[in-house]
Amino acid sequence: MRTVAWDDTNQQVRMIDQRLLPGEFREVSFSSVEQVAGAIQQMVVRGAPAIGASAAFGMALAAYASQTQDIAVFRVEMIAAGQVLQAARPTAVNLAWAIKRMLQVVESFEGGSVDELRAIVLNEAQRIADQDVQINKRMATHGANLMGEDETVIHHCNTGALATVDWGTALGVIRMAHQQGKKPHVLVDETRPRLQGARLTAWELEQYGISYELITDNAAGFYLSSGEISRVLVGADRVAANGDVANKIGTYMLALAAQDNQVPFYAVVPTSTVDLELQEGSLIPIEEREPAEVLDIEFMGQKASPEAARARNPAFDLTPHRLISGIITEEGVIYPPYEMNLRQAVLAGKS
Amino acid sequence: MRTVAWDDTNQQVRMIDQRLLPGEFREVSFSSVEQVAGAIQQMVVRGAPAIGASAAFGMALAAYASQTQDIAVFRVEMIAAGQVLQAARPTAVNLAWAIKRMLQVVESFEGGSVDELRAIVLNEAQRIADQDVQINKRMATHGANLMGEDETVIHHCNTGALATVDWGTALGVIRMAHQQGKKPHVLVDETRPRLQGARLTAWELEQYGISYELITDNAAGFYLSSGEISRVLVGADRVAANGDVANKIGTYMLALAAQDNQVPFYAVVPTSTVDLELQEGSLIPIEEREPAEVLDIEFMGQKASPEAARARNPAFDLTPHRLISGIITEEGVIYPPYEMNLRQAVLAGKS
Repeated sequence: MRTVAWDDTNQQVRMIDQRLLPGEFREVSFSSVEQVAGAIQQMVVRGAPAIGASAAFGMALAAYASQTQDIAVFRVEMIAAGQVLQAARPTAVNLAWAIKRMLQVVESFEGGSVDELRAIVLNEAQRIADQDVQINKRMATHGANLMGEDETVIHHCNTGALATVDWGTALGVIRMAHQQGKKPHVLVDETRPRLQGARLTAWELEQYGISYELITDNAAGFYLSSGEISRVLVGADRVAANGDVANKIGTYMLALAAQDNQVPFYAVVPTSTVDLELQEGSLIPIEEREPAEVLDIEFMGQKASPEAARARNPAFDLTPHRLISGIITEEGVIYPPYEMNLRQAVLAGKS
Repeated sequence: MRTVAWDDTNQQVRMIDQRLLPGEFREVSFSSVEQVAGAIQQMVVRGAPAIGASAAFGMALAAYASQTQDIAVFRVEMIAAGQVLQAARPTAVNLAWAIKRMLQVVESFEGGSVDELRAIVLNEAQRIADQDVQINKRMATHGANLMGEDETVIHHCNTGALATVDWGTALGVIRMAHQQGKKPHVLVDETRPRLQGARLTAWELEQYGISYELITDNAAGFYLSSGEISRVLVGADRVAANGDVANKIGTYMLALAAQDNQVPFYAVVPTSTVDLELQEGSLIPIEEREPAEVLDIEFMGQKASPEAARARNPAFDLTPHRLISGIITEEGVIYPPYEMNLRQAVLAGKS
């Protein structure tokens, strides 16, 4: 069961609608690139690697929707499809990464018909999705090998199968440790505003039979200073060349509290999430989402803010590399100096 | 309109039911010490100074409920009433402080009838309540004098009129700055789990016409690193002799993020919140409340966690004094070294 997949029978993109979990498990199908862009924007699908694979399948939809037999026209249509997808969300670099990779296949195609190229485009999207699962398992193994028998870890947002095509990044490390026979216990940050921890990570951990307890994001500092936490594991939406990490809002304060208590703090990311073109984190665009995500919440059956309340809602924040103990990639665990070591890992990942 | 007050006609304690705000403004009345203890435990009333005044009025209820004419019996009954109230919540020291002050009045009474002593007990509760308002305004003036014309401040939990008998502590500083003609803008931490920021502080700020925006607790680090925040203002439930502060869960991470960005972080507390008997914060008991406060939340109309989810719910955390720029009391703004300077302020507050 993949978070996002190609439906060959209907030539559609199928996704788990993550907005409905944990109350309802429902799959939805999309038949146009605009629909896929909308699904990304509205967070039917979310998580940097899952967004990347979704964009790749969105390009495949555009390829099959195209009526042209002219390669030059087809290339222009694919560039336009990429722009539609790129506009959906700004922070996760995997979106741009996947679009770029798809366009490279289109660009480098020589001879042959547009129909052949359409098949190549779909094949590349499938490869991106399949590789995501393989990469996740490699990351997970590198990360799980760091973990002891009975660790209690704090995890922020959702970084599991639902944030990827399958398996997961930071949550993938925890799954792999569990599969190795270790007994991880997870304190799950609920992760306001959209509560991906409470809604998605808790749900996934129940499927896997991994021990967990929910906490408010505010409580992470309390537990980090209690001595019972051995590790913090998070994903990332974009990593700059110097190792600064853009991730779900709240990650920065979590990293500060980990450092203040000498608890190791790891980001778990495929090399496709590293953006070597941005020197440092301050250059990463931070998405601000709609105030309703903050305001539309009920506590014990009552609306939790005045009707006239306004809100601000940045979706991500920046964690400076000085707060990060290591970055777990499919090429191994990267330690400082990040500038040099991340570049090597990214080049290895491309080879 | 006071958060908690004595109803002389019915000899009851009247409180605003803070669990219903902002949807409904309703006052409730209690006629026994057990009911007041229940109201404190269930957070009909909350906020360290308001809890202190509520306990004092609870003692007055016990005094008038007593049938005895024997001073010795009366004293034993009052001690028992204090124990009922003390068990309601463990962290805010104002509860113990108010009970102790009431019992001192009972203990030091000489000659006269129990009826005279009952009147003295009620009078002392009234004095505690009245002094709370005066003390808040003195704190607010000291704090407001620190503030510039157009500050944007982050505020955690609720520390306004609703957390006190009237006026407020940290929010009282903001009110006073506003009353001085300054233009403070408040980023209001929603303050999970019970959302006192979204429910109560936002509601109060609307009453006062003070500019504010709601943010998730996770977003505070983002704004602190943005450069737009000039100050963080919080209350406290107990301050140890060395200046360590126990306050609403999340305060510690907020203080870390303030320090990491050189943003001044102030706790605003009456000297009655300082517990000189505890050398450091680690000795302060931290209340763990029911998991339902974490789990019973709906996001966009849907329950936000799996049915089987378990949760942990510490209500407070400790902020070490090294992260605190100053402690604003009714005796002035206290700076390090806190051990010496807090002691002086507390002694001045008692004189």
